[in-house]
Amino acid sequence: MEYDIRAGIAALPHSPIALIAEYGRDRAGLIPLWFGEGDVPTPDVIAEAGIRAIRDGEVFYTHQRGLPRLREALSDYLGRVHGVPVGVERITVTSSGMTAIMKVMQTLIDPGDEVAVVSPIWPNVTASVKVMGGVPRAVPMRLGNHGWDLDLDALFDACGPRTRAIFVNSPGNPTGWMMELDDMRRVMEFARSRGLWVISDEVYARLVYDRPAAPSFVEVAEPDDKLIIVNSFSKNWAMTGWRLGWIVAPPALGPVLENLVQYSTSGTPAFVQHAGIAALEHGEPFLVEMVDRCRQARDAVCAALERLPNVHSTCPPAAFYAFFRVDGERDSMALAQRIIDEAAVGLAPGTAFGEGGEGYLRLCFASRLDRVEEAMARIAGVLG
Amino acid sequence: MEYDIRAGIAALPHSPIALIAEYGRDRAGLIPLWFGEGDVPTPDVIAEAGIRAIRDGEVFYTHQRGLPRLREALSDYLGRVHGVPVGVERITVTSSGMTAIMKVMQTLIDPGDEVAVVSPIWPNVTASVKVMGGVPRAVPMRLGNHGWDLDLDALFDACGPRTRAIFVNSPGNPTGWMMELDDMRRVMEFARSRGLWVISDEVYARLVYDRPAAPSFVEVAEPDDKLIIVNSFSKNWAMTGWRLGWIVAPPALGPVLENLVQYSTSGTPAFVQHAGIAALEHGEPFLVEMVDRCRQARDAVCAALERLPNVHSTCPPAAFYAFFRVDGERDSMALAQRIIDEAAVGLAPGTAFGEGGEGYLRLCFASRLDRVEEAMARIAGVLG
Repeated sequence: MEYDIRAGIAALPHSPIALIAEYGRDRAGLIPLWFGEGDVPTPDVIAEAGIRAIRDGEVFYTHQRGLPRLREALSDYLGRVHGVPVGVERITVTSSGMTAIMKVMQTLIDPGDEVAVVSPIWPNVTASVKVMGGVPRAVPMRLGNHGWDLDLDALFDACGPRTRAIFVNSPGNPTGWMMELDDMRRVMEFARSRGLWVISDEVYARLVYDRPAAPSFVEVAEPDDKLIIVNSFSKNWAMTGWRLGWIVAPPALGPVLENLVQYSTSGTPAFVQHAGIAALEHGEPFLVEMVDRCRQARDAVCAALERLPNVHSTCPPAAFYAFFRVDGERDSMALAQRIIDEAAVGLAPGTAFGEGGEGYLRLCFASRLDRVEEAMARIAGVLG
Repeated sequence: MEYDIRAGIAALPHSPIALIAEYGRDRAGLIPLWFGEGDVPTPDVIAEAGIRAIRDGEVFYTHQRGLPRLREALSDYLGRVHGVPVGVERITVTSSGMTAIMKVMQTLIDPGDEVAVVSPIWPNVTASVKVMGGVPRAVPMRLGNHGWDLDLDALFDACGPRTRAIFVNSPGNPTGWMMELDDMRRVMEFARSRGLWVISDEVYARLVYDRPAAPSFVEVAEPDDKLIIVNSFSKNWAMTGWRLGWIVAPPALGPVLENLVQYSTSGTPAFVQHAGIAALEHGEPFLVEMVDRCRQARDAVCAALERLPNVHSTCPPAAFYAFFRVDGERDSMALAQRIIDEAAVGLAPGTAFGEGGEGYLRLCFASRLDRVEEAMARIAGVLG
């Protein structure tokens, strides 16, 4: 960079997912499974609520922490899903889960501050730490015989004098790993004992195949605990393009987050928030269908991967990704390019997901079953 | 704050504009002129383009720097308005002018870095510097006999060894002050000679009463100059609630800004961008009408203020604010409260706008003429 911009910003990695999409975008007949989104548009009941709000003139500046009705609907939703009350005063609406994470980093991270991050993890988390001059410390999980495994002692050992927070994304992107409630309790207790914050990204909390919802840190914490949960409408309700998310934080942080919304996005479009209200009030049938579709696709992908003797993976209990490695293949970007060239399937290279990710490929199976099956047949032709 | 959050974040001021709105929100019969927005909804030709895009399924992740068609439309628009070519490679779409400013600060400002800011100015600019740990250095203008006056030597003297950038908002909020092209040239030359960045907020460039468009720094700079312009669809096309803006920056900064979009908002809804395309392609008649309405309201406000002998102001050549002080009134928040209590008119206290602002009140006249006239009659009853 010939300009004198901040060193950390100049060094920010270009997302390898964006790079592989650039590489494969024009490949004829490509089945793109590289991004974390499905192939169905937002359900009508949600989209039409947004449209109605535009026509009703909801096009002016609005509440910085979100429409009161949306915050109440979120409070109801979280209480219903996790079985514990989550008061409106803890909730701040944001313009996506990503925006939520950036606001959390702006609140907590001074230059040199460290964040212990359970890895592999989607690249934007560590990048947002770096934007604030912070230092992510990856704690890689291992793929064992019973799925992805986090060594809690390794996580705690990674917390030193400069550590400000522990970042957990469960269910996890890209691994589909899920932290159980007992471990959440241990993490919360450790964080309390050391005065650390816990940042919990629970975006995939409803995309779970063995129970109605994943465990949430909200179930093992008091409202005043140093816990911040970030979440999003994107994955549950096919709303990736709407940019709508939320934060659950201690009530005392409300005015701080309100300021940060004011001073970074100045609020989320009210009509987008009305779509969010519709998602919470009428979106459950779509979500049930979505999980059902994803389960079928997951089962097809897992069965196909199991038939490949040189492929190692685990059938994920949650989220909508298969994350697998291939014997002898160490360069995931090169392998992802080969699969585009030879099979016309777009996968994300594991190198995108930080420590523990290289050598793996991520496949998003939130697509029509026949497309996923066709993709697996093509991949088998290359790897089999 | 009982929590250990970043010192600069805990100390961020709550916007006095939000505070006065909180104070007066429930006052019966209130005419609210405290925010920087008009009272007409987004024109149909724009809103319906957004609606059409939702129904066309433009609800997925999208280009991080903006839809190519929107960036091209912005390039055309800027060339048309300012008479100089502005290539697509210089343009990045953002989720509002505010988001644009935050991205610029993330790019440039390390803790302790200074930004010289022409003041009075809307509060979010200095706040965004502080979010990054930077230090805004206000350079207050004076209200003289010929309007607001910036002493360029004072601006240059405020630039020391830690200064990274000069921030200019012309036409200015709250003053309506406009920097002429000769002065822009001098600022740009000074910045070049000292290796500083110029950040130019040109959100009000089209709300001008004595010519079709305000001077722009784009007219006095080369594409590679250290100049970053931030702008927004909000004021021109009654789109405050859509959260859509853009950045003009040196082409080499494109990939950096793309990363920062990815790692802070992950893009602007595609359907919002389609509304933006419609604004640029079909919004000119609305803008002409808007300026015409604002001019009439401005003239009414200026005439009313002139009739008050204890009021000092200047009739602004641009933007949509009257900014005036009253003899003997030093506490603008107290005066704004009194005007709510006694006149049921909502104004923004000058203390919101940093150095040089205290003692003043800001009135947004982008409202129906009869409402503005009624507001002025009521204010005259209190101040006259």
